Amino acid sequence: MNFEELVRQRRSVRRFEDRSLPPEMVDTLLEAAQWAPSGGNLQPWHFYVVEEASVREQMVDVAKGQTFVAEAPMIIVVCADPDRSAERYHERGRTLFCLQDTAAAVQNVLLAAVHLGLGACWIGLFDEEECSQVLSLPPHLRPVAMIPVGFPAQQPRVRPRRPIEEIVTRV
Amino acid sequence: MNFEELVRQRRSVRRFEDRSLPPEMVDTLLEAAQWAPSGGNLQPWHFYVVEEASVREQMVDVAKGQTFVAEAPMIIVVCADPDRSAERYHERGRTLFCLQDTAAAVQNVLLAAVHLGLGACWIGLFDEEECSQVLSLPPHLRPVAMIPVGFPAQQPRVRPRRPIEEIVTRV
Repeated sequence: MNFEELVRQRRSVRRFEDRSLPPEMVDTLLEAAQWAPSGGNLQPWHFYVVEEASVREQMVDVAKGQTFVAEAPMIIVVCADPDRSAERYHERGRTLFCLQDTAAAVQNVLLAAVHLGLGACWIGLFDEEECSQVLSLPPHLRPVAMIPVGFPAQQPRVRPRRPIEEIVTRV
Repeated sequence: MNFEELVRQRRSVRRFEDRSLPPEMVDTLLEAAQWAPSGGNLQPWHFYVVEEASVREQMVDVAKGQTFVAEAPMIIVVCADPDRSAERYHERGRTLFCLQDTAAAVQNVLLAAVHLGLGACWIGLFDEEECSQVLSLPPHLRPVAMIPVGFPAQQPRVRPRRPIEEIVTRV
């Protein structure tokens, strides 16, 4: 699949087969995250790879009851390190760059999942404080996304896109 | 090039050949942006495609003197639409989701550029107000990234990455 197809094949997958991920696939997903771009190459991120079932169960509450989260064999919790970006870029680093950098990492993981024949879903709606408690995050890390990943047990339909004419202005 | 190679081949390209982009390549870049994921599929974004030389020149000032910006035949200015996300997701939509969604779109554009043999650079350090003025942005749009794109006249060296052990915790 070339990149243009990959981008269009990505879906939010919320049903997973009951089998774990081969370690080399987990490595590929994490390397995709690692190679995301970041402002000043600061790499203001940390990734929690949650495979332990009891912790995945707790993540359902963190994600406000989205039960499918625990059905994935693995959840990657993506954390930003706002201080790391703020040290060089001050407020703009703290409130923009570290969020953009981690989002680029999430997107790399989602596309790597498609590349590997896996399914994944970007979850942004969750309780950050509760997440920090469950994972005992150090205070400098802010959880900004959760990505359940597994072998897909569904192929969701494509969601419509706003037309190019509506989202592009040429100057 | 498969996805794993694509991710590793991406560099921040800051020198460009003096030739414009074929329209079909521009289309591919914009479609990559269009197909980015977004919270609730709200697609809280708008893309300004700047090809006019005099406007590209003005973008150098906007980008605090980064002259290479105007050397690219095209600059995509990525704008977030915070209100659009806030309508459904309130403060979290305004300060997080619309920034993440547009960052995913930027990352898609950067990877599409590699796929096409083009070079691009993610610029976050610029004056948002000045950018809004130069492009006469409507008040609801916030410019969050500038992406000069062109045929690369350099192949920058790979920037080092923090090792996986340092950025990953397994639970």
